[in-house]
Amino acid sequence: MINIAILGFGVVGSGVADVIAENADSLSQRLCGEKLNVKHILDLRDFPDHPLGDRVTKDFDTILNDEEVLIVVETMGGSHPAYDFSKKALEAGKSVVTSNKEVVATFGAELLAIAREKGVSYLFEASVGGGIPIIRPMWQCLAANKILAVDGILNGTTNYILTKMFAEGWSFEDALSKAQELGYAERNPAADVEGLDTCRKISILASLAYGSAIDPKKVHCEGITEITAADVAAAEEFDYRIKLLGRCADVNGKVYAITAPFLVPTEASIANIDDVYNGISVMGNAVGDVMFYGRGAGALPTASAVMADVLDVIRDCRKTIGWGPENPDIYCDYESAVLRFLVCADKAEDINHVFGVEAIEVRGKFYAITGLGTEKALKEKVASIDGARFIRVME
Amino acid sequence: MINIAILGFGVVGSGVADVIAENADSLSQRLCGEKLNVKHILDLRDFPDHPLGDRVTKDFDTILNDEEVLIVVETMGGSHPAYDFSKKALEAGKSVVTSNKEVVATFGAELLAIAREKGVSYLFEASVGGGIPIIRPMWQCLAANKILAVDGILNGTTNYILTKMFAEGWSFEDALSKAQELGYAERNPAADVEGLDTCRKISILASLAYGSAIDPKKVHCEGITEITAADVAAAEEFDYRIKLLGRCADVNGKVYAITAPFLVPTEASIANIDDVYNGISVMGNAVGDVMFYGRGAGALPTASAVMADVLDVIRDCRKTIGWGPENPDIYCDYESAVLRFLVCADKAEDINHVFGVEAIEVRGKFYAITGLGTEKALKEKVASIDGARFIRVME
Repeated sequence: MINIAILGFGVVGSGVADVIAENADSLSQRLCGEKLNVKHILDLRDFPDHPLGDRVTKDFDTILNDEEVLIVVETMGGSHPAYDFSKKALEAGKSVVTSNKEVVATFGAELLAIAREKGVSYLFEASVGGGIPIIRPMWQCLAANKILAVDGILNGTTNYILTKMFAEGWSFEDALSKAQELGYAERNPAADVEGLDTCRKISILASLAYGSAIDPKKVHCEGITEITAADVAAAEEFDYRIKLLGRCADVNGKVYAITAPFLVPTEASIANIDDVYNGISVMGNAVGDVMFYGRGAGALPTASAVMADVLDVIRDCRKTIGWGPENPDIYCDYESAVLRFLVCADKAEDINHVFGVEAIEVRGKFYAITGLGTEKALKEKVASIDGARFIRVME
Repeated sequence: MINIAILGFGVVGSGVADVIAENADSLSQRLCGEKLNVKHILDLRDFPDHPLGDRVTKDFDTILNDEEVLIVVETMGGSHPAYDFSKKALEAGKSVVTSNKEVVATFGAELLAIAREKGVSYLFEASVGGGIPIIRPMWQCLAANKILAVDGILNGTTNYILTKMFAEGWSFEDALSKAQELGYAERNPAADVEGLDTCRKISILASLAYGSAIDPKKVHCEGITEITAADVAAAEEFDYRIKLLGRCADVNGKVYAITAPFLVPTEASIANIDDVYNGISVMGNAVGDVMFYGRGAGALPTASAVMADVLDVIRDCRKTIGWGPENPDIYCDYESAVLRFLVCADKAEDINHVFGVEAIEVRGKFYAITGLGTEKALKEKVASIDGARFIRVME
């Protein structure tokens, strides 16, 4: 019998319990006959009607001091106390498996170092892309590659909103309301629509790809709240779709990382990832372009990823996936990136005059796609036109 | 220094040597400073101008008897002598990494058993999907799932042909000629266009998903040689694309496995995998639908997958991924599958009379999509109409 504890019995935590119950036979087969037992569940609420209701405790020390608990599954969300509990568990020689992107993005390097020191594992497959296998494939299957770039649609809520703005012509506000109505967006949607969730996830993928902790606070982050229905329609005129991307890339040994809406060419595989789906495209110097696609959230998909980590810990409790401390010199200035841009202004002649390209009219605004240039230079030009804006274009 | 030997210095074998040379620094970093050395290359040809030309031997025993060689990379292709050399290497306590789908599909269970017995690894990530991570994600990342179904576009040559028949309206013969001209198809394209390559690959994925060796000879196999430009156009009229799929699914504990052209709904993610790309959709009972996409062949992508296995062996030489001996009762009769079908006949009234559905005319032939029924029942009906044919429809 292998005993685990679950911290936080919300959507993901209860999904983990469900997968363990539902797939008990096939899990036991994978574990050569051993059975998994959820010995403790930490939550402030009671669950008197749940079959595991008698396992619920409000006291983390019960778990910390139980030597039979080898693996702690952290599905609390938020930085505190999730980080503190994870740290204590690792220090006590327990492996920790998490779906908590906030903790991994912010405290990953520290927790990974403690895990290595203690000879246990800190695994986080579920922190990016829900059930989509991405952490392990990047780490293990693409291990012989230099990772040239990662482009990800990493947030289902914003992808749903942008999909509806494209397919139905809705405004951002209307699409957000619908997403809230369907339960895809929270009542306070800031973390999603302002890009923070994507930003944490691309920080994790960039840390994994480049070996240095990438601080999400140092990754330039823009959300989709300023994107208008006219922008989406204009992008379509130029044969692009607008997607909120987390991007990172190797630029001469430095790391370019950004979260922002991008125009993605319609024929790019990532342009066709719609609704609440996530997709992550990874470019390696040997493998070329590979893409991973699936549901980026939800109880059972996320639980599937958590359980993959749990099984991995059981097979090899010293499993290490991860990165070292932050190398402060690794960041490249995002404004030095050379891109094309979609520019928008109130008057066609302003665009023509400043960028030397013809603008098209879409719903009373004028749009054009610029030639290649640095973001820094572009911003200076845009600032010279009253009320002008821009969106980056993915090559 | 970790010494490996490469068997077969063709496209993939030389790609492996190229990746080791090109990414020497990052590989060494992954191996905590250890260096990889290609000590021997087995080939009947000489490579006097290659930097590793002095490593070439024509005698397998040189490799077998060299105790410094821990890992044998088998990239010869074909069953013999690849199988025999792999078996000898495993029996001698060396791990074997292969890209050879023919050997894995046919002899996998035996070689995996020898590897387990000897405490070494037999790994085969490169045997399916080229560089796309699929074997390890299915085995490891989806380990907590019951695999409900796998649908794969597993052969780039046939996918290129079907893409051109769709996009350009070409005949099968014209598209094949173009594929040969571009080097995507061999002069003798039978293994590709008759479905055998796909059949071997889906056998490997089915074996992995269901734990029993699935014999490719027992998987019903049809190629794309009978698909006409009119079929492709008719499918489009019904909002489908024709793709050559390897499919396997759990049907009440038995395994349904087939290789055949299928009508795939245009909105399905797998329908939009074009040209020489491969894509594999896996449905798990927890994760839902996830998809893996990338280049399914080529020197460097395939070498990327081979090297992932090599690194894995170095980290854990007892790594076991795989399946047991064939369970002869596991196969379900493919003709008992309940599907819809695209039927084609010379006269509209025949289709109307036999299937009770209206047919549409496309290039002088008449097409309709039937209601749900078993393949067995469908075949009886089709046989009652002179010259009628059918193609299966993916739900």
